Amino acid sequence: MKPYSPPTGGRQGKLRLDFNENTLGCSPRVLDWLRERLTPEALAVYPEYAEARSELAAHFGVRPEQLLLTNGTDEAIQLVVNAYVDAGDEVCLLRPSYAMYRFYAEVAGAELRELDYHPDTLAFPLQELLAALSDRTRAVLVANPNNPTGGGLPRESIVRILEKAPHAAVLVDEAYYEFSGVTALDLIPTYPNLFVSRTFSKVYGLAALRLGCLFSNADNIRSVGKAQSPYSVNALAALAARAAIRDQEYIQSYVREALSARDLLCREFERLGVPYYPSQANFVLMRAGDRAIAIRDHLREAGVLVRDRSYELPGCVRVTVGTREQVRRFIAALEQIW
Amino acid sequence: MKPYSPPTGGRQGKLRLDFNENTLGCSPRVLDWLRERLTPEALAVYPEYAEARSELAAHFGVRPEQLLLTNGTDEAIQLVVNAYVDAGDEVCLLRPSYAMYRFYAEVAGAELRELDYHPDTLAFPLQELLAALSDRTRAVLVANPNNPTGGGLPRESIVRILEKAPHAAVLVDEAYYEFSGVTALDLIPTYPNLFVSRTFSKVYGLAALRLGCLFSNADNIRSVGKAQSPYSVNALAALAARAAIRDQEYIQSYVREALSARDLLCREFERLGVPYYPSQANFVLMRAGDRAIAIRDHLREAGVLVRDRSYELPGCVRVTVGTREQVRRFIAALEQIW
Repeated sequence: MKPYSPPTGGRQGKLRLDFNENTLGCSPRVLDWLRERLTPEALAVYPEYAEARSELAAHFGVRPEQLLLTNGTDEAIQLVVNAYVDAGDEVCLLRPSYAMYRFYAEVAGAELRELDYHPDTLAFPLQELLAALSDRTRAVLVANPNNPTGGGLPRESIVRILEKAPHAAVLVDEAYYEFSGVTALDLIPTYPNLFVSRTFSKVYGLAALRLGCLFSNADNIRSVGKAQSPYSVNALAALAARAAIRDQEYIQSYVREALSARDLLCREFERLGVPYYPSQANFVLMRAGDRAIAIRDHLREAGVLVRDRSYELPGCVRVTVGTREQVRRFIAALEQIW
Repeated sequence: MKPYSPPTGGRQGKLRLDFNENTLGCSPRVLDWLRERLTPEALAVYPEYAEARSELAAHFGVRPEQLLLTNGTDEAIQLVVNAYVDAGDEVCLLRPSYAMYRFYAEVAGAELRELDYHPDTLAFPLQELLAALSDRTRAVLVANPNNPTGGGLPRESIVRILEKAPHAAVLVDEAYYEFSGVTALDLIPTYPNLFVSRTFSKVYGLAALRLGCLFSNADNIRSVGKAQSPYSVNALAALAARAAIRDQEYIQSYVREALSARDLLCREFERLGVPYYPSQANFVLMRAGDRAIAIRDHLREAGVLVRDRSYELPGCVRVTVGTREQVRRFIAALEQIW
């Protein structure tokens, strides 16, 4: 098993279109709120989560017992996998998708069933996945929308997966929910095998702080939480999230701008004749062909960071969408080499 | 398996003698450094660890490849246990000790061999532990000094454990090292089965941020780190630690004060006829007898938090040592009920 080693380092100050972060950063109110609370005592005490948990639960429309704060979405994945999957158990994954599903399934010694997105269209292989699900399936890990392909699943497809695998834990990772508007969160009372995760690392602009939210019914959350360190989430993440959800106008305004920017990016790709895949997230996958790495390197020299995905999708480069102005900067740099 | 649920909540503003934190808080320079770097972009980007890792390694006198930053000591314990212990494998623990050793060993499905501290003296059961170690032992988890007993092991005892269990991972948790001055860190080049952990949650006053350091030889660190999320540690913890280690005068001054305060506390216990166990850490375990819980509750009403340990050491209450002035406040409140 190889460690997952994303190519980070020295990214601040560049146009960061490589990690699907919020390219403007969090709401200024989050910073004000943190600065006011940054005292020696606040840093010295072990984290307390009761207020954050109850405020976040109210924001997401669930009961506090249906929510677990996690050290990024990664810990949510790890907890679900560890609670359901023993060595030799079967886990269904999509390919390509977020690397940590496979990572934690491998750490647990799972037997992997990997279903490929359609090689040409990158469509979700729903029939193949449904056919692969059986009583032996212990977990299904799906991103909606998916990363790096950008496509999303309708709720009805999630429901079909849930109903076909009633004895498996089905984790729907909604890291990019805010850009797609499709969620399974309200299905939690109906499907006892459903887990949903959200993150503060993307639209909320708090990737540095590491906060994820895992949702399921109260029994599942209690059970999964048993294997968690009582202090897994740092106190500033819990504090920042409380401030972040209160400034919904900031989030909605960023989402509106990103959706406009995504439209603009796609139009520019069409103008330049760059093939790309339609996206429901804050990134677009372009087909750069043989020159994918050369293009990425050229862009980096121009101060624009994008993510080459050739190792899983030959010739594909993933471009985060921020603002229209940032799209124009990206396109200007791309045009020099395209 | 029960979750570990320490009784936290609403502790700020009270005299916190219940979690062995730094009772004054971190160096003011850490706060200044964090405030200066708290920008929207700094929070939006995924953490980068190269600078922190290299500065901390230099501070601790190891190479960067011998150091892994972890999400508190808890993650260090988890990583070591998960790397070495499969279901049914034997793990040696001391009893009582920090709860998370047993917690992660149980999560891994280990067969536990628990050695009791001497019931009267709370002396370390070295002969019993050495006799229990065998080729079947996969991990030995020892706190030095131990929590909640406060006693410490000399280096020679650590060496005997390392030599008796060459095929086991031996984790020496030095969370309270700064108060005892005894470390096994320099033994890492000699013993390939040695892991040492340190924390920024105690003397450094950064428990809210969650940062631990795991040390071992480079091969071990690489191997153990393979199962870690690439973003397990939040960026502010990594930033704060860099500032914290630079202000050694602050740390040394706090340690000096805490050692004086520990002497004062022991003298006061003697004056009042309170039985206690000698300590090499920043806390002292007192024998409060049948009234342990009543005493804890009385102190809490007086705004002084201490930790009842009756569930593992009947009648024992653990009192964190901060400053001499804080000891006097504690003793004044204790005298009302003792």
